[in-house]
Amino acid sequence: MKGDKNVDIQALKDMANKLRIDSIVATNASKSGHPTSCASMAEIMSVLFFHTMRYKVSAPRDPSADRFILSKGHAAPILYAAWAEAGLFPVSELSNLRKLDSDLEGHPTPRLSFVDVGTGSLGQGLAVAAGMAYVGKYFDQAPYRVYCLVGDGEAAEGSVWESLHFASHYKLDNLVVIFDVNRLGQSEPTSLQHQMEVYAARLKAFGLHTMVVDGHDVSELVKAFDEAAAVSGTPTALLAKTYKGRGFPGIEDKDNWHGKALGAEGDKIIKHLQSQMKSQAPQLKARAPLAEAPRVHLADVSLSAPPNYKKGDLIATRLAYGTALKKIADTNMRVIALDGDTKNSTFSDKLRNAYPERYIECFIAEQNLVGVATGAACRDRVIAFASTFAAFFTRAFDQIRMGAISQSNINLAGSHCGVSIGEDGPSQMGLEDLALFRTIPTATVFYPSDAVSTERAVELAANTRGICYLRTSRPNTPVIYNNDEVFKVGQAKVVRQSSSDRVLLIGAGVTLHEALTAATTLHQQGVEARVLDPFTVKPLDKAAVLQHARAVGGRVLVVEDHYQAGGVGEAVLSALALERDVVVKHLFVSGVPRSGPPAALLDMFAISAPHIAAAAKSLLDA
Amino acid sequence: MKGDKNVDIQALKDMANKLRIDSIVATNASKSGHPTSCASMAEIMSVLFFHTMRYKVSAPRDPSADRFILSKGHAAPILYAAWAEAGLFPVSELSNLRKLDSDLEGHPTPRLSFVDVGTGSLGQGLAVAAGMAYVGKYFDQAPYRVYCLVGDGEAAEGSVWESLHFASHYKLDNLVVIFDVNRLGQSEPTSLQHQMEVYAARLKAFGLHTMVVDGHDVSELVKAFDEAAAVSGTPTALLAKTYKGRGFPGIEDKDNWHGKALGAEGDKIIKHLQSQMKSQAPQLKARAPLAEAPRVHLADVSLSAPPNYKKGDLIATRLAYGTALKKIADTNMRVIALDGDTKNSTFSDKLRNAYPERYIECFIAEQNLVGVATGAACRDRVIAFASTFAAFFTRAFDQIRMGAISQSNINLAGSHCGVSIGEDGPSQMGLEDLALFRTIPTATVFYPSDAVSTERAVELAANTRGICYLRTSRPNTPVIYNNDEVFKVGQAKVVRQSSSDRVLLIGAGVTLHEALTAATTLHQQGVEARVLDPFTVKPLDKAAVLQHARAVGGRVLVVEDHYQAGGVGEAVLSALALERDVVVKHLFVSGVPRSGPPAALLDMFAISAPHIAAAAKSLLDA
Repeated sequence: MKGDKNVDIQALKDMANKLRIDSIVATNASKSGHPTSCASMAEIMSVLFFHTMRYKVSAPRDPSADRFILSKGHAAPILYAAWAEAGLFPVSELSNLRKLDSDLEGHPTPRLSFVDVGTGSLGQGLAVAAGMAYVGKYFDQAPYRVYCLVGDGEAAEGSVWESLHFASHYKLDNLVVIFDVNRLGQSEPTSLQHQMEVYAARLKAFGLHTMVVDGHDVSELVKAFDEAAAVSGTPTALLAKTYKGRGFPGIEDKDNWHGKALGAEGDKIIKHLQSQMKSQAPQLKARAPLAEAPRVHLADVSLSAPPNYKKGDLIATRLAYGTALKKIADTNMRVIALDGDTKNSTFSDKLRNAYPERYIECFIAEQNLVGVATGAACRDRVIAFASTFAAFFTRAFDQIRMGAISQSNINLAGSHCGVSIGEDGPSQMGLEDLALFRTIPTATVFYPSDAVSTERAVELAANTRGICYLRTSRPNTPVIYNNDEVFKVGQAKVVRQSSSDRVLLIGAGVTLHEALTAATTLHQQGVEARVLDPFTVKPLDKAAVLQHARAVGGRVLVVEDHYQAGGVGEAVLSALALERDVVVKHLFVSGVPRSGPPAALLDMFAISAPHIAAAAKSLLDA
Repeated sequence: MKGDKNVDIQALKDMANKLRIDSIVATNASKSGHPTSCASMAEIMSVLFFHTMRYKVSAPRDPSADRFILSKGHAAPILYAAWAEAGLFPVSELSNLRKLDSDLEGHPTPRLSFVDVGTGSLGQGLAVAAGMAYVGKYFDQAPYRVYCLVGDGEAAEGSVWESLHFASHYKLDNLVVIFDVNRLGQSEPTSLQHQMEVYAARLKAFGLHTMVVDGHDVSELVKAFDEAAAVSGTPTALLAKTYKGRGFPGIEDKDNWHGKALGAEGDKIIKHLQSQMKSQAPQLKARAPLAEAPRVHLADVSLSAPPNYKKGDLIATRLAYGTALKKIADTNMRVIALDGDTKNSTFSDKLRNAYPERYIECFIAEQNLVGVATGAACRDRVIAFASTFAAFFTRAFDQIRMGAISQSNINLAGSHCGVSIGEDGPSQMGLEDLALFRTIPTATVFYPSDAVSTERAVELAANTRGICYLRTSRPNTPVIYNNDEVFKVGQAKVVRQSSSDRVLLIGAGVTLHEALTAATTLHQQGVEARVLDPFTVKPLDKAAVLQHARAVGGRVLVVEDHYQAGGVGEAVLSALALERDVVVKHLFVSGVPRSGPPAALLDMFAISAPHIAAAAKSLLDA
């Protein structure tokens, strides 16, 4: 390929060194950052951005363009440098790296026009890339390709291997994973150092078309990327043997240079790099996309038919979730579902049964499940609903957290919350999912309590930006709303009230029904209770909580099938924090629960109707 | 090996069928559970428990005994059956499976004397087993061996591959991983089904001594386990090709039988299984351990020297963490540290530098990091401190959650919390870790604010049962306590007060120092503020919060470098929930933060001294 007259190898070499220089300048200006981690991948970036990838500098996130995910987000400066050198913004702006008023942050985020997802928590980029590649191959059926650069340090993350398996299982031949094997981690050499043959054996065994290349040889890289483009039916892994701090004399391949600006060494090294360049301003341009991606309409999603239940019907909210998911898929071709081998429990199989081509089975790998959904939803290609047991989203907390940084619009549905699942026991009970999702700055948290509100929650989630979480329950519970009831994000419902109410009961899911039963008991004992269904826990309807708390004399009782921290109770406490003259009694699951019949467990953990009634009465004198 | 006169192959075959029958009886009694998942591993369990493993039925968790981890926890009934058949308890008790008053839960937990850790969230058992094997080989240097049974469905979890890499990297030849490749997941066949050669290639590439066997052939299993015992320098993987529902006519290898009791089919199938047995009561006994494990003393751990600072010294709490970790390691040989390639940031390298043999580098794989720590701490073998950035414990939330079910005593230290880390940006900022750890029922959450209290927090954590979490900060902050200050779990400190205080400021870490600065400003403006350092956020010193809130007229201001949900603020709100006549203003990080200088970020996100002072004044009329 060295003889290929269409490729200006020298210019690509020069560009690699220019990107190194840019990375040094930027990190020296910020006095922090990871120039040595940039240096190992300079040739890879040069070849990708100025030979291989097809994109539009004028529209970096154009749907037709090749995608590039920098999984090792700490090498952000060289990503920024590549876009600057491609012409998106002046190279001089790189000196604003990590400044408060610059979007050139320490790790990339979509605040930048050319970044799809936030990276920096390691081992997450490949799942996102795989999600993009899945959409490109199966939904968009467009020729754009996806490139993901993974560091060797982060290759120790199991999530990477989940995604490699996913990519080969689904034959994502439009995906190229580049491993920047620079041998050195943050605090010591990686466990495999430069054992390229071990990496190669693993990647081959995971089903990838695997090539080992000298990651500093531009010609080899050009050839390898060209070869990857011709591979059919298999994703490609490009194992690039590189050196951390490559081209930095005295620093290259040396320990203790992770995450440090070069400082006073910088000028000398820049001069050295310049001396290696034939041209200080290599003339290279991005190649244009091959074809447009299809236009997609994701707005105004609606149920194909309104909820159709009778009040009192016994329907699990997880079942209503599946029903609604299929209904919104009826009306929008880009609604898709993903699951982690729990589809017959979460009822995401309702969508799959109707539209098998719009269902992605992710098997038992929840980190990859969430990452693939995130990638699929990028550039507004699909409306993704990913489901598993509520408990198992804890497995993907880091991915969900990064999803907020990524400005993701994924929808996540967690079934089997709380002790009300019964006999399967604590490992299967979601008792911390509300705390998890309430921390997510961009999240909307739905906790519907009957089938009608669940269907509307699904419809609202599909139309709500940010991460949406739907918490559903295993047991059958009665329908309490009319089919035409209107629900809004952040709008609670009062489901029982009178003018003589003396206590406000707040419950959701199974505990709303327990609260209603308790209210009936209390009524028989001469105590009137108002009952409120929050519908969304985040945002919580603060005005309604405040209004009704005041109306009953400031006596509030919150009961939830969740641990104490971070759930409905603390959301209510936050809402009432600045209100004097109110007390909040909180019933929640305390201690690690156990196996048993659902009703017995609600009672054992003191969140059943009799406990609610007793607690409400204890509040009357408060 | 069929000719080996020391092995009663027929009895082992009979035992396998007896275990099947027991599993059917138990799940039929509970009308739920996973008999088909038990059936695929019946021969494996028979050979392990009645040929291979060395243990004491009289003391199931004896330190000298071989360990068995059932990673696919849903096969609990056959684990219970094996111990019953070994003589630990009457077989008739199996019919109490999943009942509220029985510890024979849907998934195993250490409420049972023969279970080390809770399983049931899939893909977690192997990390635990690897931690046990590491301790056995390197710390106990005892001949006990560790067996871990992994389902093929859960082999899709990346955590499994993290642990396989760890096990081979550290040459854990006392570890045998058995893969029960029964082809069927919960909702459809696994992605690899019976492609044994793909599994074998992957496991070989991951460095394991790999054997593929017929998992229903007792003779083959005996031979394979014997071979594994002779392997040196490498863990063994035993790939057992099996069939789900093996031996259940009409059900074996059929879809849609996951997690279902056999019901009316049961009796017929039991008769069929009995017809396959030569003896209905096979006579087999457990082999005894080869040697005792060393006696270990884990109590009364103390710092080798008291804290030695001057008030006003600027010391990051993360640095004090490392100092203290080394000091407790001085006084107890069984204090160990683990880290995920961040040891030069968390300062766990202080222990490593002093005692390299007591440091376990887990590289960038946080799920395995926590799992290995959990396994290492089992049977009170070591006091484990595992550290990484606070943000990255989100990666292991599921493992931590399961750690509570496992009654684990691990200590976890999360550095780099909050926006105060500065330029690295949001992906590296722990802003949800308090919410995470506050949900853990067995957790103690330390959030020390200076070097003295950090050292004492480490000492207390080493002596506290349950999961301990220590939150440390990146910036240098002044020492505020005397070296002889005494700290206790659940005991807050008032660090500034007067008789005319009108507002209570609660901060921790960097925000305690901001609160102190704000109190000085307020004083200059004629407003006296009391300042409280909670020291532990869980348990929170409810009595102190209440007392001081009342003393200042019910005006409380909480400021924290964490998101709103589940942190210090909501802990305080929970503590004051039943108190009328109190208001709580809460300053926290809202929205996704960004890169910038720490002080600028504290100000931008309104948790700096000027914002605290302003908020405090706004409370005076509340």
